[in-house]
Amino acid sequence: MTKKIKAGVFGATGYSGQQLISILLSHKEVEIDFISSSASVGKEFNDIYPQFRGIFSDKLISFDEGLERIQNVDVVFSALPSGAVFEIAKKALEKNKRLIDLSGDFRILEKETYEFWYKTEHKAGEILEHAVYGLPELFEKDIKEARLIANPGCYSTASILALAPLLRTDELVDPYSIIIDAKSGVTGAGRKEEMALLLAESSESIKAYSIATHRHIPEIEQELSIIYGERLNITFTPHLIPMKRGILATCYINAITFCSDNDIYEIYEKYYANSPFIRIRREPLETRFVTNTNFCDISIKVDIRSRRIIITSAIDNLIKGAAGQAVQNMNLMFGFDCGEGLSRLMPLIP
Amino acid sequence: MTKKIKAGVFGATGYSGQQLISILLSHKEVEIDFISSSASVGKEFNDIYPQFRGIFSDKLISFDEGLERIQNVDVVFSALPSGAVFEIAKKALEKNKRLIDLSGDFRILEKETYEFWYKTEHKAGEILEHAVYGLPELFEKDIKEARLIANPGCYSTASILALAPLLRTDELVDPYSIIIDAKSGVTGAGRKEEMALLLAESSESIKAYSIATHRHIPEIEQELSIIYGERLNITFTPHLIPMKRGILATCYINAITFCSDNDIYEIYEKYYANSPFIRIRREPLETRFVTNTNFCDISIKVDIRSRRIIITSAIDNLIKGAAGQAVQNMNLMFGFDCGEGLSRLMPLIP
Amino acid sequence: MTKKIKAGVFGATGYSGQQLISILLSHKEVEIDFISSSASVGKEFNDIYPQFRGIFSDKLISFDEGLERIQNVDVVFSALPSGAVFEIAKKALEKNKRLIDLSGDFRILEKETYEFWYKTEHKAGEILEHAVYGLPELFEKDIKEARLIANPGCYSTASILALAPLLRTDELVDPYSIIIDAKSGVTGAGRKEEMALLLAESSESIKAYSIATHRHIPEIEQELSIIYGERLNITFTPHLIPMKRGILATCYINAITFCSDNDIYEIYEKYYANSPFIRIRREPLETRFVTNTNFCDISIKVDIRSRRIIITSAIDNLIKGAAGQAVQNMNLMFGFDCGEGLSRLMPLIP
Amino acid sequence: MTKKIKAGVFGATGYSGQQLISILLSHKEVEIDFISSSASVGKEFNDIYPQFRGIFSDKLISFDEGLERIQNVDVVFSALPSGAVFEIAKKALEKNKRLIDLSGDFRILEKETYEFWYKTEHKAGEILEHAVYGLPELFEKDIKEARLIANPGCYSTASILALAPLLRTDELVDPYSIIIDAKSGVTGAGRKEEMALLLAESSESIKAYSIATHRHIPEIEQELSIIYGERLNITFTPHLIPMKRGILATCYINAITFCSDNDIYEIYEKYYANSPFIRIRREPLETRFVTNTNFCDISIKVDIRSRRIIITSAIDNLIKGAAGQAVQNMNLMFGFDCGEGLSRLMPLIP
Repeated sequence: MTKKIKAGVFGATGYSGQQLISILLSHKEVEIDFISSSASVGKEFNDIYPQFRGIFSDKLISFDEGLERIQNVDVVFSALPSGAVFEIAKKALEKNKRLIDLSGDFRILEKETYEFWYKTEHKAGEILEHAVYGLPELFEKDIKEARLIANPGCYSTASILALAPLLRTDELVDPYSIIIDAKSGVTGAGRKEEMALLLAESSESIKAYSIATHRHIPEIEQELSIIYGERLNITFTPHLIPMKRGILATCYINAITFCSDNDIYEIYEKYYANSPFIRIRREPLETRFVTNTNFCDISIKVDIRSRRIIITSAIDNLIKGAAGQAVQNMNLMFGFDCGEGLSRLMPLIP
Repeated sequence: MTKKIKAGVFGATGYSGQQLISILLSHKEVEIDFISSSASVGKEFNDIYPQFRGIFSDKLISFDEGLERIQNVDVVFSALPSGAVFEIAKKALEKNKRLIDLSGDFRILEKETYEFWYKTEHKAGEILEHAVYGLPELFEKDIKEARLIANPGCYSTASILALAPLLRTDELVDPYSIIIDAKSGVTGAGRKEEMALLLAESSESIKAYSIATHRHIPEIEQELSIIYGERLNITFTPHLIPMKRGILATCYINAITFCSDNDIYEIYEKYYANSPFIRIRREPLETRFVTNTNFCDISIKVDIRSRRIIITSAIDNLIKGAAGQAVQNMNLMFGFDCGEGLSRLMPLIP
Repeated sequence: MTKKIKAGVFGATGYSGQQLISILLSHKEVEIDFISSSASVGKEFNDIYPQFRGIFSDKLISFDEGLERIQNVDVVFSALPSGAVFEIAKKALEKNKRLIDLSGDFRILEKETYEFWYKTEHKAGEILEHAVYGLPELFEKDIKEARLIANPGCYSTASILALAPLLRTDELVDPYSIIIDAKSGVTGAGRKEEMALLLAESSESIKAYSIATHRHIPEIEQELSIIYGERLNITFTPHLIPMKRGILATCYINAITFCSDNDIYEIYEKYYANSPFIRIRREPLETRFVTNTNFCDISIKVDIRSRRIIITSAIDNLIKGAAGQAVQNMNLMFGFDCGEGLSRLMPLIP
Repeated sequence: MTKKIKAGVFGATGYSGQQLISILLSHKEVEIDFISSSASVGKEFNDIYPQFRGIFSDKLISFDEGLERIQNVDVVFSALPSGAVFEIAKKALEKNKRLIDLSGDFRILEKETYEFWYKTEHKAGEILEHAVYGLPELFEKDIKEARLIANPGCYSTASILALAPLLRTDELVDPYSIIIDAKSGVTGAGRKEEMALLLAESSESIKAYSIATHRHIPEIEQELSIIYGERLNITFTPHLIPMKRGILATCYINAITFCSDNDIYEIYEKYYANSPFIRIRREPLETRFVTNTNFCDISIKVDIRSRRIIITSAIDNLIKGAAGQAVQNMNLMFGFDCGEGLSRLMPLIP
């Protein structure tokens, strides 16, 4: 029996952080060495989430204590918001530890682009080159070798996985016509005491927000451009819908030649043949089909009348869109079974 | 004091039907003469909806009794599903009564197009020419004179109102690029005992459905084509979201010349200057802002990077998308104040 | 045509406050003279609630400005939280204006009892004697003459209306055995940015809270004791459930003699024969039956096996439990039709 | 490595049945031999629940085929509704197989009592004596030896676990004063196409139902009477609340001597000291704390003023209230680790 690796988690009490803890607790190859949360230093994890009474009661340490403990662990996860990870990243690389960062801080290759969209200075530009975009279905090889993983955004994961196969094909679609209309449950906004997130204000309503200005736009454009081989612009509209978990991305792209549903399905089935967490569905999909799992479900419909291909993809934003993907990346980096900690996540019905 | 007109309502116990009853009950110029529901003949309205105990207890009559009573009323409403209205329409015209039909049966000008999309024979083709598409903001004049109103579909109302102003302008947009991504609460599906509509199966999930095949497509295309002056095809994707009421339509159209948010807002504000139920919002909109009202809210964003204009519109699907619009049409037809019965509908917060 | 009276509203932007505005806007006998909200001075009402664009755009004034304006109005409403109303009350009485206070500040007859349960000093003890408990079904006469109305709490309204008829009967029940198990939607907690009220934290869950310590306990006990004629203690447990509006009170009381459902129904039907907003239901009730209305629905079941009577009552906590009852009180005080502004409130289905 | 036992599951596609499948799939000691569902014979499990694509695709067999296969398995689970299990039970006993029945058919010791409350003939009275009430925290010894387990009802589990410790104490409470006010999510009603269970009809509302007549009453009374040693009657009121999973039982019992919260907590902590799935909480509880787990959480409050003890308990109705408890029973019966298959069930936040 091999020894477990040690993991440290920053931002352990946010929605993504707690989901990460939950997955790591049943991961056979990992033990949690420390958990950190500036707002709750000294409290136990199960004080913040009473759900975990009798399951997990580690004490939360401060950011600075966390930095100190980096040297003791094998892998560091940060589930802190963007702008808060620079110091952790520098320390982790300095101590030669592997870091999986769930924020947007290392997803954008160009410092200037980051600073434009995130409206803040990038304080670790010198290590940006080490960052690998952690989408395992597309960049498995790089991830295995990576020291610093930029774990993809939730919308980005659903969008890129939905569109990548079409961009690798020749003369089928117009890559400049991409429109992504995405819908997310409220946990996508994080755990914040905000009026707009109250049940009384957010149930029984839907809204579009950050139209044409959402931070996941440069990330999606960057990765789709890399896949296609030329610079692309996309239209991306996120919506907030009255549910807790789940993202549905409805993606539109113009067909430039005649094609049937089946033609497109074959492309996708081939493309994702070795991706156990992608389920190509020859049936309509719903976000509840992926709730509490690491799956990304994809379904396809060609609208022959308007010559557009409509790809829908669904993920659990906290799992495949955050913590699950982070663990999937870790599994690759450390050579663990790719489904370890993840394949036991059973869909929750109802 | 003028005498009230008499109204008869077929399909009174569906979601649209009961909303219509609710509005008519507080309408000063109308009294309800009969209500009909095949499934509940002989029951009182407040047996079906105990909410109405002490408010409205009229007995429901059969379809055939309803047909007989048409001659006694001034206006007939039908909130029956598509395919069930032909006989009512013929009788109403024969008796020279005005009919407002909330189904799709008289919305499509061409019999063949109707039969293709609705997969059923149109049994009243001979009176199709009398039908006027009942979107008051666009066709006020025709509605005033109409004997048979085809009350628009819920998705269609939100979509057409969102796009009409742009199609009347020259050389600003590419009308062939229209994509409508629409989201609806579950009452859009009607009052049916269906597994997919159970709280346990439909809350905490979103799905796209009827992609490229929804019956509102020919209706939206027809009306947008009339407005534009040439035949258009659109892409339309409806989604079901976990809430009861409300539709948000996110509409995409390519700009072919440079334009700012303000340019577009000015077009809309001018276009709808005399439309009291259209609220152009220079702020993001949410469906809850229109819940329980007859408003259609519209907001605009130009995505300069991808050269697309994104128009969002929101309605209450049972009011502006059905019963409210029907009453708005009746007010025009009978010369009542345009807001009668409708302006008293107060937004329900929260 | 009579002149409208003028009303001023403190705390206009809370959930009860906005509901009050909504009702007053369609009240034929009242015009709104001022609205006040310390947190939003200078903003328009429809900036806070964009739902009201095109409907109501009055500017919110400060607390102090509101105090000044009291002299110009005929009736003052305060929808401020407990502890904030003392100064308003003193000013209103001084200026000989009528005040309807929706907080708990004037509900408790004894200063000491108030201070014990509310953990704060009562700063207007000298005018407590002027306060009339504003439950129109029980105290109509006093309300008509009152200068200062203590508008009942939401739980208290549902509980007292459910139990009062039994306490006026002799030798049927044991008044010392009362247990009230009440369930409320989240708006009962007010409009607060609190973690526990987030959709992500409060949907899909129920909790009991403030067991044996809720502030409505002394109020319910006081009124039930007055009705019964001797000092009673009750057990009261409030619960928070994942919905926005509505309270269901399930009340238990021991029968001390044999009785049937019908026996009890007759007592209630007689007791409330002249109360248009009480609906005695000989069928199960649900809170949605009263949503958006001023009704209190009551249903009865005698459990013969355990010799207990179970009375359930349902109200919309923001209407019959707050703003609607306040308007009902105003109607009595000024001699308006008892249903004015209230009978037009149509149940919202679905 | 020991060989896995084989399990057969009747009623595999109901809400409890699918939850059972989900738990068994990650249970180390069990393999699923057959799954049966009369309504879906020949379909794959993941046709009924597309969530399980790529996870579980066994074909559903008919009831009769299931009966035949009983001889091949070690344990039979039935998640069929009451009235449908008699034949299975006889066959299982005949073949000397162990049966865990999730219906009410074998919970009531007396045939006549069953027939009175269930309004149907008990067709297997001759084997009733073999049935053991499967509440592991109370009847561990009997369960280990049992051939036929009557898995407790969901309400009964929450209620009995909440009250048992007090009934084993002397002269502290009045056992004849028990009132249980229980609240359940909609999955408690099963997977049925019923109007009342639609999202449009059941969200945003709460109702009490089956007051004084619910089938779990004789079950709760029977078990509490056994614990107490004398025949008890209880008052039990179930409520339906707008959420999917979860039961909260608020239990009231009169104290006959002075006691503090701490006194009662000590009794419970001692009573459940060896029960890993009971969490005594010295803090308020919420049903979301137990969602997706096999825990029963219990919290206590003594209302000194009214001399009542209020015990709240929370379970996930599909797990501790059904499938999880069934597996807990199986673990006892076959000598597996008591938490096998259950302790990996992580709370789902949010």
